[in-house]
Amino acid sequence: MENFDFGMVGLGVMGRNLLLNMADHGFSVAGLDLDAEKAASLENEADEKHTIKGTTDTKEFIQLIKKPRAIMLLVPAGKPVDSVINSILPHLEEGDIVVDGGNSYFEDTNRRVKELNAKGINYFGMGISGGEKGARFGPSMMPGGNENAYERLRPIFEAVAAKVDGEPCVTYLGSGSAGNYVKMVHNGIEYAIMQLIAETYDVLKRGYNFEDNELQQVFETWNQGALQSYLIEITAAILKKEDTITGKRLVSLISDTAKSKGTGKWTSQNAMDIQAPVPSIDLAVTMRDISKYKEERVKAATMYPWNGDAKDVSNQNLVALFKDAFHFAMVTIYAQGMAQLTIASKEFNYGLNLEEVAKIWRGGCIIRAAVLEDFRKAYKADKNLPNLLLDSSLASTLNTQQKAIREVVKIGIDKGIPMSVYNTTLAYFDAYRSEVLPTNLIQAQRDYFGAHTYERIDQEGIFHTEWDEK
Amino acid sequence: MENFDFGMVGLGVMGRNLLLNMADHGFSVAGLDLDAEKAASLENEADEKHTIKGTTDTKEFIQLIKKPRAIMLLVPAGKPVDSVINSILPHLEEGDIVVDGGNSYFEDTNRRVKELNAKGINYFGMGISGGEKGARFGPSMMPGGNENAYERLRPIFEAVAAKVDGEPCVTYLGSGSAGNYVKMVHNGIEYAIMQLIAETYDVLKRGYNFEDNELQQVFETWNQGALQSYLIEITAAILKKEDTITGKRLVSLISDTAKSKGTGKWTSQNAMDIQAPVPSIDLAVTMRDISKYKEERVKAATMYPWNGDAKDVSNQNLVALFKDAFHFAMVTIYAQGMAQLTIASKEFNYGLNLEEVAKIWRGGCIIRAAVLEDFRKAYKADKNLPNLLLDSSLASTLNTQQKAIREVVKIGIDKGIPMSVYNTTLAYFDAYRSEVLPTNLIQAQRDYFGAHTYERIDQEGIFHTEWDEK
Repeated sequence: MENFDFGMVGLGVMGRNLLLNMADHGFSVAGLDLDAEKAASLENEADEKHTIKGTTDTKEFIQLIKKPRAIMLLVPAGKPVDSVINSILPHLEEGDIVVDGGNSYFEDTNRRVKELNAKGINYFGMGISGGEKGARFGPSMMPGGNENAYERLRPIFEAVAAKVDGEPCVTYLGSGSAGNYVKMVHNGIEYAIMQLIAETYDVLKRGYNFEDNELQQVFETWNQGALQSYLIEITAAILKKEDTITGKRLVSLISDTAKSKGTGKWTSQNAMDIQAPVPSIDLAVTMRDISKYKEERVKAATMYPWNGDAKDVSNQNLVALFKDAFHFAMVTIYAQGMAQLTIASKEFNYGLNLEEVAKIWRGGCIIRAAVLEDFRKAYKADKNLPNLLLDSSLASTLNTQQKAIREVVKIGIDKGIPMSVYNTTLAYFDAYRSEVLPTNLIQAQRDYFGAHTYERIDQEGIFHTEWDEK
Repeated sequence: MENFDFGMVGLGVMGRNLLLNMADHGFSVAGLDLDAEKAASLENEADEKHTIKGTTDTKEFIQLIKKPRAIMLLVPAGKPVDSVINSILPHLEEGDIVVDGGNSYFEDTNRRVKELNAKGINYFGMGISGGEKGARFGPSMMPGGNENAYERLRPIFEAVAAKVDGEPCVTYLGSGSAGNYVKMVHNGIEYAIMQLIAETYDVLKRGYNFEDNELQQVFETWNQGALQSYLIEITAAILKKEDTITGKRLVSLISDTAKSKGTGKWTSQNAMDIQAPVPSIDLAVTMRDISKYKEERVKAATMYPWNGDAKDVSNQNLVALFKDAFHFAMVTIYAQGMAQLTIASKEFNYGLNLEEVAKIWRGGCIIRAAVLEDFRKAYKADKNLPNLLLDSSLASTLNTQQKAIREVVKIGIDKGIPMSVYNTTLAYFDAYRSEVLPTNLIQAQRDYFGAHTYERIDQEGIFHTEWDEK
């Protein structure tokens, strides 16, 4: 007894797969689930090379783990996390470590850290990305919590994480809810890149009659170069997939009403709270919401015809244009998300190291991409870089692509096809590179109707004007 | 004693002005403020035609008011509201009415409604718009709470509210926090229209070298026609104003770092919660946030030069183009905000009548505008209209302006001047009028990496595919 390296509460696909991944790497693991079948099915995987135990008994489970205990929860975010904590807490001892591996809201994690630390228990919030396969064969993991306690977890997490150039896609990120926050922004970026891909697909298909197999080739080719990334890779795979029933491309048979689980929304909502502008993520969230109103859209489609057309471009030139525009937008989306992390790190005292974030996102996770190595270098060159757009190496690439993104956005406008993330990303870029914005007028308006006062560019102080006096 | 019509807690400018407005209309009013000077200064306004009492004594104040008592709070949102409630509560009796006239967060109002109703007290959350002058001479007021109790307030509120065509800009809106919610969305729309004006100013000034006096004439002329609105009107007045010190136009001396008090942000954040797409408001909030990063912007301006130019247009044609584009965007912004109200009304059981909302926004408030009469007619014609864009009369106008907004947005893109609200509004429009969106691809991606399942267009059910199996 008391000799297992690691315990997992919740043996759904993610929990089970991550535990099997650990067992593959020689760690002895125990799993707890109230569903006896899941516990038994886990234990079935045990053999001479894999020390695995499954149980439905909380007390037995806790006693299996070596002290200080390392116990991860992989249960749905929200109340289930609290009830699991309550059920294991009576059996835990000072110094034990609880790791929440779900997509918990960062403020819930802050509360739990406080509650458990008060009882001498170390609490970690850890984002895990990579889906079922990632959990089984190498995810990207984003842990935040007590730095000293992390040493107990480090060898296990480093063994199971994805590797890029031999470096594991996991590292201690920072205190409190740092891990959940980083994962939240990861998902926000994921939303925006997915929407960017969808818009590319839409314009080429609706606007230029590209067939699914042509589109598949575009994404497959892009995935060989600077745009190499998991999301582009799976897009090519998706576009290839045929429906087993009809023989048509499966993607064309899927409903266009998008669902979401809320982490993208949290990213935008909290960005607004800390005044970190991430408009491309905002729009990606909102575009999924618009897709819900199918009946209204069908009606509006008949009421608002538009027969405009963009200038003629050969397919080859078009794809080249989109490739540059996509790269420009992709970089500028990550720039927003990573700047949000920088701002959040100050706001919440996380102590994030953005170079490390870029490093662990290079593999295992949904937003892994070749560009992350560029971002890592940018943060390595200047660890206080407030925004990736201020890195001179990235800037010189983006400057060669400014014309392309402008052309591409105009195509969408002429054709009447919404390219909301493309054009919002460009608007963000143009605002960010504007020494002077017209917000002076907004300040004047606020002072006019609400006496909210304003500052001046030529004098210190706070001013108010009676605007309608002659 | 016990014969005053109305009591006000908080004698800052808003509370004092609204009370004096009531006194002008023959109501006897009492004011409470812990600041003796404010209480005395209010009472100084009493004469034979104005029955006004000011006091610093809570118990005395409460006893002055006729039962059932009608007491309004005009104190800063948040904790001050709770502490005022706690201080007056011991003196109140069943059936008394408390009205919070501040910009309280609607969920705070829900909590307070519950707490006070349990004690037999009627609680109203009421948004008030119009600034100091509005409070003094006729604001737009948005009350929500118990419908029967509203009868006690109705004669007073209808007397003091702004009037349009003889109709008061106040009406009972709905239950619970309906009033605060409507005011919140009012402010969200306000943010977006202000940003729209700022972008117009920016492109004409930075992009086409319009002088402030030319710009002033543009807005002054626009204010005579279909674009007539308070925000356009004050923009013209602002652009006219000279700085008393330097003699320059004052607006050009104001810092371009915008502030905000959070109600626009709440609108976007809650819209995301209830999946009501309001991207133009999202972007207006975000653009104020971008303006904060002045130092970064100055640096980025040197790193990302752009010398593009748009095609030549005469100033006269340009202004005509912008006039149409502005109208298009303005209508489409209100359409988003009012659709959010429709969705929120279902979500929170407010029982809102959108025709009434349009009616009371026509006068007194910051977003009052000629277009609101068109909106009122649209909702009168179809009280279940889910979105103003589906009104055929508005549609025929917007269809004549589609080309103009597309041209205008392209100008911003060519010139490299951010027109985020213009182009996001167009993207919203193009998404809303898209029978098919590319979100099928997003659903496929979600199913690929997260087994989130999808629906099909040709069969009922929930599906999952093993995408990478051959």
